[in-house]
Amino acid sequence: MADTLTKFRELTTKLKQYSEILGLVYWDMRTGAPRKGIEFRSEAVGALSDDMFRLSTSDEMGELLEKLGQPDTYAALSAIDRRLVEETRKEFDRNRKLPPELFKEYVILTSQSESAWEVAKDENDFAGFSKYLERIVEMNRQFIEYWGVRGTPYDTLLDMYEPGMTTPELDRLFGELRSRLVPLAEAIRARGDRPDTSFLQSKFDIEAQKKLSRFILKQMGYDFEAGRLDETVHPFATGLSIGDVRITTHYYEHDLPSALFSTIHEGGHALYEQNISQELARTPLATGTSMGIHESQSRLWENMIGRSRGFWQRYFPELQKHFPGQFDNVTAEAFYRGINVSEPSLIRIEADELTYNLHIMIRYEIEKMLFNEGLAVRDLPEVWNAKYKEALGVVPKNDSEGVLQDVHWSGGSFGYFPSYSLGNMYAAQMLNTAKSKLPDLDGQIARGELQPLKGWLTENIYRHGKMLDPSEIILNISGEPLQSSYLCDYLETKFRDIYRLG
Amino acid sequence: MADTLTKFRELTTKLKQYSEILGLVYWDMRTGAPRKGIEFRSEAVGALSDDMFRLSTSDEMGELLEKLGQPDTYAALSAIDRRLVEETRKEFDRNRKLPPELFKEYVILTSQSESAWEVAKDENDFAGFSKYLERIVEMNRQFIEYWGVRGTPYDTLLDMYEPGMTTPELDRLFGELRSRLVPLAEAIRARGDRPDTSFLQSKFDIEAQKKLSRFILKQMGYDFEAGRLDETVHPFATGLSIGDVRITTHYYEHDLPSALFSTIHEGGHALYEQNISQELARTPLATGTSMGIHESQSRLWENMIGRSRGFWQRYFPELQKHFPGQFDNVTAEAFYRGINVSEPSLIRIEADELTYNLHIMIRYEIEKMLFNEGLAVRDLPEVWNAKYKEALGVVPKNDSEGVLQDVHWSGGSFGYFPSYSLGNMYAAQMLNTAKSKLPDLDGQIARGELQPLKGWLTENIYRHGKMLDPSEIILNISGEPLQSSYLCDYLETKFRDIYRLG
Repeated sequence: MADTLTKFRELTTKLKQYSEILGLVYWDMRTGAPRKGIEFRSEAVGALSDDMFRLSTSDEMGELLEKLGQPDTYAALSAIDRRLVEETRKEFDRNRKLPPELFKEYVILTSQSESAWEVAKDENDFAGFSKYLERIVEMNRQFIEYWGVRGTPYDTLLDMYEPGMTTPELDRLFGELRSRLVPLAEAIRARGDRPDTSFLQSKFDIEAQKKLSRFILKQMGYDFEAGRLDETVHPFATGLSIGDVRITTHYYEHDLPSALFSTIHEGGHALYEQNISQELARTPLATGTSMGIHESQSRLWENMIGRSRGFWQRYFPELQKHFPGQFDNVTAEAFYRGINVSEPSLIRIEADELTYNLHIMIRYEIEKMLFNEGLAVRDLPEVWNAKYKEALGVVPKNDSEGVLQDVHWSGGSFGYFPSYSLGNMYAAQMLNTAKSKLPDLDGQIARGELQPLKGWLTENIYRHGKMLDPSEIILNISGEPLQSSYLCDYLETKFRDIYRLG
Repeated sequence: MADTLTKFRELTTKLKQYSEILGLVYWDMRTGAPRKGIEFRSEAVGALSDDMFRLSTSDEMGELLEKLGQPDTYAALSAIDRRLVEETRKEFDRNRKLPPELFKEYVILTSQSESAWEVAKDENDFAGFSKYLERIVEMNRQFIEYWGVRGTPYDTLLDMYEPGMTTPELDRLFGELRSRLVPLAEAIRARGDRPDTSFLQSKFDIEAQKKLSRFILKQMGYDFEAGRLDETVHPFATGLSIGDVRITTHYYEHDLPSALFSTIHEGGHALYEQNISQELARTPLATGTSMGIHESQSRLWENMIGRSRGFWQRYFPELQKHFPGQFDNVTAEAFYRGINVSEPSLIRIEADELTYNLHIMIRYEIEKMLFNEGLAVRDLPEVWNAKYKEALGVVPKNDSEGVLQDVHWSGGSFGYFPSYSLGNMYAAQMLNTAKSKLPDLDGQIARGELQPLKGWLTENIYRHGKMLDPSEIILNISGEPLQSSYLCDYLETKFRDIYRLG
């Protein structure tokens, strides 16, 4: 058994190493790899991905998993090895169930489809994109057959991003969100008292924005010796290893909040990956446990901390220092209100913290219709527009600002969208417990003492990497399964105060 | 046969792809990968290198080479495929001849030894380093046995960096260099008329230096869409693919020539790699043919063009524009003389264009003694110092500025040093032909028209990649084998003029 285990650990370490290197290649392609090298680089990525796929689905891997899965053997394994066997088997089963030719076709299709989507979005041409999307949906329906239907077909897709999450569960959660957040958003709109944001309509020196980004990341406890900050149009975070977690942001002279909150958001993702236990290094367990839990950390830091009154009590004077003269006539309170304007909008990525969840709810409902109710791709624009009208009271004037706005579906990522709202719900529930465990948390934040919170999150979330399922994490922290009420309570309290809804 | 060839091309393409990705990882490690990720990254590099080694020495590769090497089959191959078979076989033979455990030991030893060298250099502790160096020399002697002695044992090492180069050939070349360059250096010293360099003892704005570096690279024809310029302590160039050839430089506020000539030097290497024929893309033939030919291009551009009178006729006004006011009282001629000061020195990498060759000659003689005459490692400092005294008239005051100054030996790179002087000799001989083929070359350079020269170099050198041996390249260009006389003529003419030796 020792040999079997050694061999198994070797293979999984190698999978981790390949994925580290692939992560670096992707980072490079997004941060400045020269244009003329992209074709060769893509081919090299294809070769390495192919090696990785072969390794993870090899007969050798199958035999090792078989041996290590024998009850006596399995029982004798360490907790880490048991988890490693489970996670590797999940990947193995998923990949082995697909006919390789089908998978290859899908990889090519989705890469072409992403380019087609870009063109279609630019040219407002849903019809041009829909032939790709139809095939992608059709293939995903096939995949679900191969993988096996869990409850409903859509559940099979959900499980990839949020292990254990189901449609009934999401129906309940989004139903509750709808019943509390739609009225809240309507009350805000009816109030008609938009906070002043005129002080944000100005030019903000890019060098000063960069300094501020680095300053705030350091305050959060982001370790620059285990990461770096670069610039890309679309900010992202990527954990190559525990010792190398990189983030990117973007700076616009006329949009200070954009850089600021992108940086904090990606910083939240990065704190998770930088603080995974060293015990898990060199294994594929050294990463976030799900998209939802990952998103909980970016959103907790970006919105619940970064857009909180207490945070700006401490950091507004720092902001003033970074942009001398530009905030002389603004108070911390006015700034806090200005960065928390909530209003219905058409574009998800520009939405505020409250209405964002309604954008996600719409996508969830549509995806479910696609996979569980046979909605046809050609009917998407109509359904999309009707749902926006109903939930947000706005209607896109064309498909580019409607059904074509997001990249996800062009890459075949169905079941991913719910992660964003799950992240918000997890975050609110976590923070509720954190406040009881760290009774002075609000005071600490208002004094810029962010390390107690980071420590608590590390202890309860970060260090575990992929050792615990999302449901175990939230249960361990709060003593109950995921609820929507914490998020609703948090948003109601925050926005009723900001909008003086009495 | 078609299948055999297809399979062979697949494997060689994969080797090229692995090496592209490894190249990227090394680039990343040198340009800003975070410190805490280095340990994991090194392990990942080890895994990928190991895969590459296995692939290049696999039984499958052996069988393919065997089949493709059959006379009838081989004769039916295209020129590129024939060359690919030859080069792959060379690598295969070299690697298969070493016992894998010995090779593994060597990889670990040299990586430890590079760290030990850094410490030893800092602490002037040759004894501390010599136990590593002794084992490295001993292992190289063993390798030579495994690989087979070519002429003399040292020839076997030489051939790795400069295919076809031999000790008798180098003895002749360095003998000639010695007999003409030592007296020239002495005459300069005796003349005692050092050009004025006071205008270089100033502060030069780093942003302006960066702009100048980019400007000059563009003038040379470096394609920024197929590369990028970054900063590292030790500048380098790396060709990941024809479409991605990256260079680095460094900027010091008090040392303008350092950035300037590092940039041009690495730019020369990059022009070579960017202009390899697209036909060779995706094969391991898409790289420079030898270290010597590569170095000929960095040195031709850095010294023979970049430090020429004509170049500064055109670019001195540009320099003045980049540093307003700082060169108002300097003439192009004074600048030209100032950047061409020649004087004996102890440190190779700081040496001028003339005496540089004497530094290399010393290393060549010592390496030859180590492998052909049984020189003991413990005697290196004494031999080193004696040779510096004899050839340059200077003696290191300690080993840090003597035998410990270069990294090469700590990594086991014996036989590499001659490449630098070979590069100078190749470059002078190439330029001599270029001047007859492009009769207005001097005029073109003085007008900043660098593209005819780049075009000529592309036609005769760059596009061929690894398709031709170094000896074929120089023979095709000049109609004769490599000679030292062109370099000696060039240096004598240039420095007798600068130092007014009449």
